[in-house]
Amino acid sequence: MIVALAGGVGGAKLAHGLAQCLTPENLTVIVNTADDFEIYGLRVCPDLDTVMYTLAGIANAVTGWGVADDTFVALEMLRTYGEDTWFQIGDKDFATDILRTRMLAAGRTLTEATRALCTGLGIGPALLPMCDQPVATVIQTADGELDFQEYFVRQHHEPTVTGVRYRDIETARPSEPVLATLAEAEAIVLCPSNPIVSIGPILAVPGMRNAIITSAAPKVAVSPIVAGSALRGPADRMLESLGHEVSAHGIAKLYADLVQGMVIDEADAALAAPIRGLGMEVLAAQTVMRDDRSRESLAGTVLNFATSLKVAAG
Amino acid sequence: MIVALAGGVGGAKLAHGLAQCLTPENLTVIVNTADDFEIYGLRVCPDLDTVMYTLAGIANAVTGWGVADDTFVALEMLRTYGEDTWFQIGDKDFATDILRTRMLAAGRTLTEATRALCTGLGIGPALLPMCDQPVATVIQTADGELDFQEYFVRQHHEPTVTGVRYRDIETARPSEPVLATLAEAEAIVLCPSNPIVSIGPILAVPGMRNAIITSAAPKVAVSPIVAGSALRGPADRMLESLGHEVSAHGIAKLYADLVQGMVIDEADAALAAPIRGLGMEVLAAQTVMRDDRSRESLAGTVLNFATSLKVAAG
Repeated sequence: MIVALAGGVGGAKLAHGLAQCLTPENLTVIVNTADDFEIYGLRVCPDLDTVMYTLAGIANAVTGWGVADDTFVALEMLRTYGEDTWFQIGDKDFATDILRTRMLAAGRTLTEATRALCTGLGIGPALLPMCDQPVATVIQTADGELDFQEYFVRQHHEPTVTGVRYRDIETARPSEPVLATLAEAEAIVLCPSNPIVSIGPILAVPGMRNAIITSAAPKVAVSPIVAGSALRGPADRMLESLGHEVSAHGIAKLYADLVQGMVIDEADAALAAPIRGLGMEVLAAQTVMRDDRSRESLAGTVLNFATSLKVAAG
Repeated sequence: MIVALAGGVGGAKLAHGLAQCLTPENLTVIVNTADDFEIYGLRVCPDLDTVMYTLAGIANAVTGWGVADDTFVALEMLRTYGEDTWFQIGDKDFATDILRTRMLAAGRTLTEATRALCTGLGIGPALLPMCDQPVATVIQTADGELDFQEYFVRQHHEPTVTGVRYRDIETARPSEPVLATLAEAEAIVLCPSNPIVSIGPILAVPGMRNAIITSAAPKVAVSPIVAGSALRGPADRMLESLGHEVSAHGIAKLYADLVQGMVIDEADAALAAPIRGLGMEVLAAQTVMRDDRSRESLAGTVLNFATSLKVAAG
C-alpha cells in the first residue's frame, strides 16, 4: 500500500500520477480537510474535491478547482436572490456538495460520504479525509484572523500571513481507515502541497504524526517550492512571512523529523548537498507536472526513490 | 386586500392576473404546501415555487414547473453519482431549494423563507404558505398509499386515486400572517386549482375553513374544470375516481358551503342554472388563460364579480 498525503492542486496531480502507476487497491490518498467550510448551507471540501475530480479525470485544469466545463447557472440565481457569491461553485460542483451535505446530515461520516462520492465517479484508489471531525485553518494577519477561504478566495491570498492555527484540531483524530492504511503503508509520500495549510493540518491531527513516524515504511516528500517559488498559490509568500526559508531546503527542514527522502526539482540540484546535511536522501528530478505523462513520470520516480530508501534501510 | 388561494399552474396564472390588476400591497396569495417534500436533502415546494416564479415572470410556461430556460447540469451530475433523478430540478431551481433549505435549517419558518425568496425575485404581492408545519398529501390507490410526488411525477399521475389524506394536517395551523390577511380580506378567490390536492389541503388546515367562512368578504371560486375536463393535470380523473361529478357543477358542490359565487367557463354556461340551485351566484366567462392578457382579463372579471356579490350582500 502506497499512502499519499495531499492538499489541493499539486497534491492532486501527484496523486493522479500515482494512480497511473499503481493498481487502485494499492493507493490511498489522505487529504487535508481543514479548508472545508460551509456556504449556502452546504458543506464544501475544496481539497477533497480537487483530488477527487483530478483522480476522476474531470478536474478543471485552468482554474485548479471545480469540474471541467462546469456552468454557473445556480450561482447566478443565488446572486439574483441577493446572495454574496464570492465563493464560486459550479453546477456540477453543487451536485457534489448537495449529496455530501445530505449524507452528513443523515449521520454519515465525511469518510463514508467521500467513499460514496468516489464510487459514483468510478475512482479506484481510496480517498480519505484526514479526519471526520470539522477542523478549520485560521489565517492570522496584522488585521486579525481570517477563515481560510476568506483569506484564500475572497481576499485572493493577498494579506500577509503572520501565523496559522487549526481551529478544533485538538478534538480531531485520524479515522480508523487512516490509521489502518498508515499501518500497512509500504511508502508514504508527502505530495507537493503547501506545507503550512495543506500538509500542515494533516500532520497536526493528534496521533497522525506519530502514526507516520512509527510506520516502518520509507517516507518521501516532494518539494512544492521550485527555484524559490511556489508553482501555484501563496506557499512561497506564506513561508517567507512565517520566517521559513523559501526553498526546497526550507521545505526539507520542515519535514526533517518525518521523511528519509526528499525529491527536489532539477532546478534546485544545488540544494541537494545542504538537504543531505539535514540527514535525508535527496533526488533531483523534473517535478513540474504539466500533463498526465509528467504526473506519471514523477510518480514513478518518487516510488522508485522510496523503494531505494527501503532497500537502504533494510 | 384581495386574498387568493392557489395550488400549481392554474392558480399561479390567476394569481399573476390578479397581480396585474391590483397594487402589490392589496394582494396576498395563500399557497398549498402539502405537495412539499424533501429530495436530494433539499426542501422542495413545488406549488409555492410555481406561484413565485409565475409572479416573477420567470416561470417555465411549457413544463408548468421550474424556471424558464433553466439548465439541468447539477441534476445530470447527480445522475452521474448514481442518484435516481426521477424528480427534475433545474440549476436555477436548485438555487431556490438550497436557499430555502438553509433558511429552514437556520430555524426560520417557511413563511419567512418564502418572503426572503420573493424579495430576492422582486415580487410585490405577499406569498404565504398555507402553514409553517410540514403537511403531506398522501394518495391512496388500489396498490396502497403513495407520497404525492411519487404519484404525480414518478408515476405520471396514472394510478387511479381511491382516496386522499393529508398527513400531519392535525398538527398544522394557519400562520399569523394567513389569519391576519384573511381577517382583512375584501374578497377571497379560490383559484382554478385542483380542488382535492391543491385547494383541498389549504382548506383542511385546522382553523382555515372557519377563518374563511367567518370572513365578511365575498368568496368566489373559479372552476378548474372546463367542459368536463381539467386543462392540465389529473383533477378530472381524480374527481371521477373519488365519486365526484367531473364538471363545474361538481366543483361548485365541493365549495357550496364556502363561496357565494362561482366563475365557470362560457363552454359550461348550461351549468349556470344547476349551480345557482346550490345557492350561489354564477358568472360564465372566458376562463382559459392562454397569455398574460387573458390572465389579467379573467382576474378583472373575477374581481368585478366578487364586488357585485359584496354589493348584493350589503
